[in-house]
Amino acid sequence: MGADGLREHITLNPDRYLDPDPAVRRVARALYEETRGLPIVSPHGHVDARLLAENAPFPEPASLIVQPDHYILRLLYANGVLLETLLKAEPRRVWQLFSEHYHLFRGSPTGAWLDYELHELFGVHERLSGETAARIYDQIVEQLAAPEFRPRALFERFNIEVLATTDAATDTLEHHAAIRKSGWKGRVIPTFRPDALFKITSPEWLAALDRLGRVSDYGSFIRALGERRAHFKQLGATATDHGVLEPYTALLPEEEAERVFQRARKGEATQEDERRFTAHLLMEMAKASLADGLVMQIHPGALRNHNTQVFERFGPDMGGDIPVATEFTRNLRPLLNAYGNDPRFTLVLFTLDESTYTRELAPLAGHYPAVRLGPPWWFHDSMEGMRRFRERTTETASIYKTAGFNDDTRAFCSIPARHDLARRMDANYLGGLVARHVIDEHDARRMARVLAYELVKTTYRLP
Amino acid sequence: MGADGLREHITLNPDRYLDPDPAVRRVARALYEETRGLPIVSPHGHVDARLLAENAPFPEPASLIVQPDHYILRLLYANGVLLETLLKAEPRRVWQLFSEHYHLFRGSPTGAWLDYELHELFGVHERLSGETAARIYDQIVEQLAAPEFRPRALFERFNIEVLATTDAATDTLEHHAAIRKSGWKGRVIPTFRPDALFKITSPEWLAALDRLGRVSDYGSFIRALGERRAHFKQLGATATDHGVLEPYTALLPEEEAERVFQRARKGEATQEDERRFTAHLLMEMAKASLADGLVMQIHPGALRNHNTQVFERFGPDMGGDIPVATEFTRNLRPLLNAYGNDPRFTLVLFTLDESTYTRELAPLAGHYPAVRLGPPWWFHDSMEGMRRFRERTTETASIYKTAGFNDDTRAFCSIPARHDLARRMDANYLGGLVARHVIDEHDARRMARVLAYELVKTTYRLP
Amino acid sequence: MGADGLREHITLNPDRYLDPDPAVRRVARALYEETRGLPIVSPHGHVDARLLAENAPFPEPASLIVQPDHYILRLLYANGVLLETLLKAEPRRVWQLFSEHYHLFRGSPTGAWLDYELHELFGVHERLSGETAARIYDQIVEQLAAPEFRPRALFERFNIEVLATTDAATDTLEHHAAIRKSGWKGRVIPTFRPDALFKITSPEWLAALDRLGRVSDYGSFIRALGERRAHFKQLGATATDHGVLEPYTALLPEEEAERVFQRARKGEATQEDERRFTAHLLMEMAKASLADGLVMQIHPGALRNHNTQVFERFGPDMGGDIPVATEFTRNLRPLLNAYGNDPRFTLVLFTLDESTYTRELAPLAGHYPAVRLGPPWWFHDSMEGMRRFRERTTETASIYKTAGFNDDTRAFCSIPARHDLARRMDANYLGGLVARHVIDEHDARRMARVLAYELVKTTYRLP
Repeated sequence: MGADGLREHITLNPDRYLDPDPAVRRVARALYEETRGLPIVSPHGHVDARLLAENAPFPEPASLIVQPDHYILRLLYANGVLLETLLKAEPRRVWQLFSEHYHLFRGSPTGAWLDYELHELFGVHERLSGETAARIYDQIVEQLAAPEFRPRALFERFNIEVLATTDAATDTLEHHAAIRKSGWKGRVIPTFRPDALFKITSPEWLAALDRLGRVSDYGSFIRALGERRAHFKQLGATATDHGVLEPYTALLPEEEAERVFQRARKGEATQEDERRFTAHLLMEMAKASLADGLVMQIHPGALRNHNTQVFERFGPDMGGDIPVATEFTRNLRPLLNAYGNDPRFTLVLFTLDESTYTRELAPLAGHYPAVRLGPPWWFHDSMEGMRRFRERTTETASIYKTAGFNDDTRAFCSIPARHDLARRMDANYLGGLVARHVIDEHDARRMARVLAYELVKTTYRLP
Repeated sequence: MGADGLREHITLNPDRYLDPDPAVRRVARALYEETRGLPIVSPHGHVDARLLAENAPFPEPASLIVQPDHYILRLLYANGVLLETLLKAEPRRVWQLFSEHYHLFRGSPTGAWLDYELHELFGVHERLSGETAARIYDQIVEQLAAPEFRPRALFERFNIEVLATTDAATDTLEHHAAIRKSGWKGRVIPTFRPDALFKITSPEWLAALDRLGRVSDYGSFIRALGERRAHFKQLGATATDHGVLEPYTALLPEEEAERVFQRARKGEATQEDERRFTAHLLMEMAKASLADGLVMQIHPGALRNHNTQVFERFGPDMGGDIPVATEFTRNLRPLLNAYGNDPRFTLVLFTLDESTYTRELAPLAGHYPAVRLGPPWWFHDSMEGMRRFRERTTETASIYKTAGFNDDTRAFCSIPARHDLARRMDANYLGGLVARHVIDEHDARRMARVLAYELVKTTYRLP
Repeated sequence: MGADGLREHITLNPDRYLDPDPAVRRVARALYEETRGLPIVSPHGHVDARLLAENAPFPEPASLIVQPDHYILRLLYANGVLLETLLKAEPRRVWQLFSEHYHLFRGSPTGAWLDYELHELFGVHERLSGETAARIYDQIVEQLAAPEFRPRALFERFNIEVLATTDAATDTLEHHAAIRKSGWKGRVIPTFRPDALFKITSPEWLAALDRLGRVSDYGSFIRALGERRAHFKQLGATATDHGVLEPYTALLPEEEAERVFQRARKGEATQEDERRFTAHLLMEMAKASLADGLVMQIHPGALRNHNTQVFERFGPDMGGDIPVATEFTRNLRPLLNAYGNDPRFTLVLFTLDESTYTRELAPLAGHYPAVRLGPPWWFHDSMEGMRRFRERTTETASIYKTAGFNDDTRAFCSIPARHDLARRMDANYLGGLVARHVIDEHDARRMARVLAYELVKTTYRLP
């Protein structure tokens, strides 16, 4: 309630996130108006395909909004809320705790997404706080029960043209197959992510290898990977994805690859084996992309599970992944020398190390035909992060060597909020260029559409 | 004199350092007005406690303003003024030289602090230059003779609630004790800084060890450190501080720590010994913090005394310290895994490497309960530096995981200027968020107070 | 043609690239007006002296504008245009292709330079596109035939006071001599760049050594370098330039330098030899600068010819050079300790790694009398790049430790465009400081002139 005892009626300002300068804002608003209604193309994310295969109603707000979102868990934990409670307490208690700490998200992209989601999706017009938590919880629960809040209905309401999931190489893709068979027209496609098969020192590697099928030597391993790629492609995949600590690439002689593979099977692979084998497999994946046309994505630079205690008690994706400095120029040289000039190849690079934008990534994308820059990723998928990305890459690489937007989310209901924010920030960036007479409005309108819709389709080969 | 021969009357614009956009400035000014009068809490700095113990009048402007300030010495030296002259010439000559080069400080934080100090503290309303130098010198000398310019009177006029000094672990703290005994109510507290005892390859280490007391093995060394911590705490200390080249942390086995310690006593410790011993002692200091509640600060990344010639002739703190790239993610992992989840522990991290803000520091503070980000430090304690800090850390770590402002100064009279600038820049940052509808004015008012006053008190446990 | 079928008449907005905020723009425009007419001093660039020695008419637009500009080639190639075609097709075809892809340069400095060049130099008032390409080609061809488009006439029209070229240490400098002998008053001076003689593992090193003259040992090598420096100086040179992968400096014992030199002569030098020999030769060059007064420039951090395929087919400078992270603090310490305090020495540092601006370069320039910061280089010579440079170096190093502007271009006709952009961006930076009351207009006017004209003359000793 407001100070006067009346319930506040919160509205989202139509010009939110745009620069206050009137010359910028006027153009930015006009550009945003032209792109806000375009379909959403989501070429990289972590929504579970089962959601759309089963199309069951969402349960309640805590498990929908709070518990699966490592951005939220992370900041609550950092401010003293126990993960134990957040993950295991009764849903209303979790929601109450989250609401009492909602001020932590002021000024963050998570706050921007949540405000949008609450307001636009659930019609919540009160400020979320400890006081309003219970009332808002009830309001959301009521909405979620309605048929128009089922996943497929939301997919259509969100105007999603394509949604790509991210899937282990050995995934059965049964949910993707089920969606196809169901007759529902929503386009949900898998992405081939073979990371677990690259981590030859991991205790889970042998199990992953078993799931891959009958594989006894390096040659059959590569063939099996190829068969999985083909299976993914059959179910609509247009891309692969590779999460690595460093984007190191290097070709091993075939016999050496075989030797490392055999050491791995015996559980004798070393960290250095894994480093070199991963470098080699990235080369193999690029070569395979030339043949099958799958776009290759590399997401490097996260030191996963930095907090051992949290990892051991609660598992991965609890906010305990911390970036490290990342080197692209030397690390990618072997791969780019081999395939970077080939028009059949597309390589989308992401980074958690913003110092590489002007130093390495924009120069690489501004030279190699194969290279595109992925949008600002993870910690950098924010208002300031998107501003920095455009300001630091456009002058060297042009917008045309960037890949459009990725929402990269496992929070299905946040998808429109994230695309909306990206469209606003791009409109704002272009508005700033117009106001400074760097480009004119005619160019800006064209570029806004390219950024919001066209680049993602050409980059990810989604006609 | 102005071009027309009349003396100029300089005033400080009330909106200085705020963005010119009217929508930002209106809010920023209102927010600043709400925080400008709050008491100053100064939890980290280098003022000499003797100053307030003795409460003697300040001598004259050159030794008060120019000679102890390495920001000033540095830039004058870089532009061809000899340190010889600056440090050893007759005070009026020093002041004259400084004034003739005052244009060098235009656009720098040093210029902003000096303008404030001259104008607000000493009532100087002329532009400082070679021409006005002598007149202004006389004006300041006259003021300094007055009782209201004695250190304690200024302390009260500055509205300082707490002032923390930085002191060698082996310091007697006699001046702190004297202040307490004097009956004067000003709260001046020490900070435990054991750096000299960590530098086991330094020629001064054995002397420092002697000052620590009867210490013959590693066990008694650690106990002696603990006793010093207790003594500091008794005199009001709430924090420790550690200046290291890199924030490397790692636990040594007890016997290995003993071996290194004994090598050091024989003068046989190597650089690598010092690196590992320092890493180990940081772990010990964190463990001790859990027990005694002292907040731990780490200031890494300065390569001290880069300029050997200057160091040998004039000693340390002459502007010849140059930053190096700093790695936090891997270096702090052992310490954070051991203590970073413990609610009893607070670790305040500083950096001279701004590329770590988004890449490492904000993610660490946005996850580990123990971690807080210290304010922009040294070269970055500036208008642009403060802007970058907020823009790069808030979206990931929130303002609530930052530590408020540190003035970090040995120049007592510049304290209000520095806090004023920080409050202006924070108000401006929040004003920008309001103008872009990221937060509303209600939130902004709350956050402004948190930034200016509350965070520093909770972080440094200063009730 | 515009949508209405009429030819568009494009004009360049007089306030282009200035911030839209009226308070900033008003001041920025006034400051720019005061500097726009100042002579151009170009102390570092890659124009071929033969151009001004021969003073022949420029042939046609493709070979004038497109083919020698690696910024243009790079981005066209990155977007799928074949280098084969760009470099070898019939000129009208090249121009057509370039024009069809002109949208790629929207928002880039190359676009800004080209717009200026087309509009201001060639009087083209149409938007360049596939449709207008042929007409504009003809228009430029016609202009180039006129005597006022000969190189020397343009040199005078551009109001160039000095133009420095960059020349191999072994260059005969015949064109520089010819210009002097010709009686034409244009001041065109060489710059001593001995890189080829430092690369002792390169297959071209022995040939370069041969061109240097009769050199059989390290002592005669150094003497020969000294003689070449003297020859350059006689023809007006005031500076040397050194392109290195890393700015590593270290003195070798004389005998060790001799041993490395002899290994190199036998073709047996290793990569590590080259690294150490280069580090040593930088020390020698600094020492020589003390004696002969030539200003020393270091351009580190480009990994040349990253794309082997492109290099092998098309040679160097095709856009395939990619930056790497660069370390200055430790690498330059030996050189700065030896010579950095000497008032006879000037060292201008450039970087492709912007993370070093606040971390290393500004602190070095803000302390060592010898150090000046070169302007934003290559990828960073852009609107945003120049903004970042000023925002990140001024507060620590002051504008007075920067070196004015370098156009660094081999595209003679783009020189005025580049200086114009730099003057606009500096005026804009200062305008922002005035609007925020950091400096006043009186200071700003003085500083604008210093940035546009005076710093380059004092730094490069060009009276």
